[in-house]
Amino acid sequence: MTVSLSQLTFINELDKLKAVKRQMLLPDEDNRQENSAEHSWHVALTALMLKDYAEHPVDIDRVIKMILLHDLVEIDAGDMFAFADEQDHAEQELKELAAAKRIFGLLNESQGQQYLTLWLEFEAAETNDARFAKAMDRILPLFQNMKNNGGSWARHKVTKQKVLDRNQMLETAAPLLWQYVNEQLDIAESNGWLAS
Amino acid sequence: MTVSLSQLTFINELDKLKAVKRQMLLPDEDNRQENSAEHSWHVALTALMLKDYAEHPVDIDRVIKMILLHDLVEIDAGDMFAFADEQDHAEQELKELAAAKRIFGLLNESQGQQYLTLWLEFEAAETNDARFAKAMDRILPLFQNMKNNGGSWARHKVTKQKVLDRNQMLETAAPLLWQYVNEQLDIAESNGWLAS
Ligand SMILES: [Ca+2]
Repeated sequence: MTVSLSQLTFINELDKLKAVKRQMLLPDEDNRQENSAEHSWHVALTALMLKDYAEHPVDIDRVIKMILLHDLVEIDAGDMFAFADEQDHAEQELKELAAAKRIFGLLNESQGQQYLTLWLEFEAAETNDARFAKAMDRILPLFQNMKNNGGSWARHKVTKQKVLDRNQMLETAAPLLWQYVNEQLDIAESNGWLAS
Repeated sequence: MTVSLSQLTFINELDKLKAVKRQMLLPDEDNRQENSAEHSWHVALTALMLKDYAEHPVDIDRVIKMILLHDLVEIDAGDMFAFADEQDHAEQELKELAAAKRIFGLLNESQGQQYLTLWLEFEAAETNDARFAKAMDRILPLFQNMKNNGGSWARHKVTKQKVLDRNQMLETAAPLLWQYVNEQLDIAESNGWLAS
């Protein structure tokens, strides 16, 4: 075995996710935009901390790997705001699939295939692991917006119903967290942080 | 079971690591300074990609958790440049221990103790898992500096010997990567990126 250049190329490629900006603002950082690399780290630790709320058995180690890799496609496709139009989302999905093939394709075939498969599982959101991983990716922005006067919801005039829809997966994946989300959105609404 | 506020407090605290700046510059981002949150994400995926180079058996899932948590102490203690003076390092260690106690202390006692223990294992660098995790934290800046004309080495006039010392753990933890590091440092030296 010698050091595989394909792995080093992949590792170097990861640097680019640090330049992909999200709609989330960081109050501890003069409200600069969050990037998708630091976001992925935050979601992974959120999942680790909240794993005991999972209603169905999850393999937290697979969940963490899915989360660490889930946003890599944004290197090519960019981040799309969660509450964008449906038509834009469909276009984005095609871009992301092409991106996944290119980026995981930097690895050797068996390693690349393994992580492409894991990414596809996350995207499909049908297994317990994928549903829990995706639910964590969606609940974290709620925590962040709640401590920043409504954050990206307020700036983009997002409705309560849209945030509920987006977190709906929690209803079966982690019912206690779903209840918490509902309570928090009532507070957000009464604070005027959500559009009607 | 209801939602634990201590976990949510901990998750919210994590946002602060996105504001801790490192000496590493990011060429894809106009050479802004890297922060410790996105760095932690990058190291975790580096470990995942390079796990097969580990000479001794490692539990990659424990390694990834250690890496995701290893820099949290910098929220209180700040990041210290790897090539700072020894005296500064000793002081930094005390600050980091206090920080670990405070930050993991935000969790409930059993969860907090569990991750404090994992962090202490990483710091001690005596187990195979911890040594591999730490080696990954140290080799990634080499990859980054090599593709950025010497990056933080060149800016801070770091010598080849210091970089070798810092990566020495690889000699037993991952000999092939140690060989790679040596080859790369020869290149860096001949490019004039290292001080003599
Ligand atoms: Ca580090």
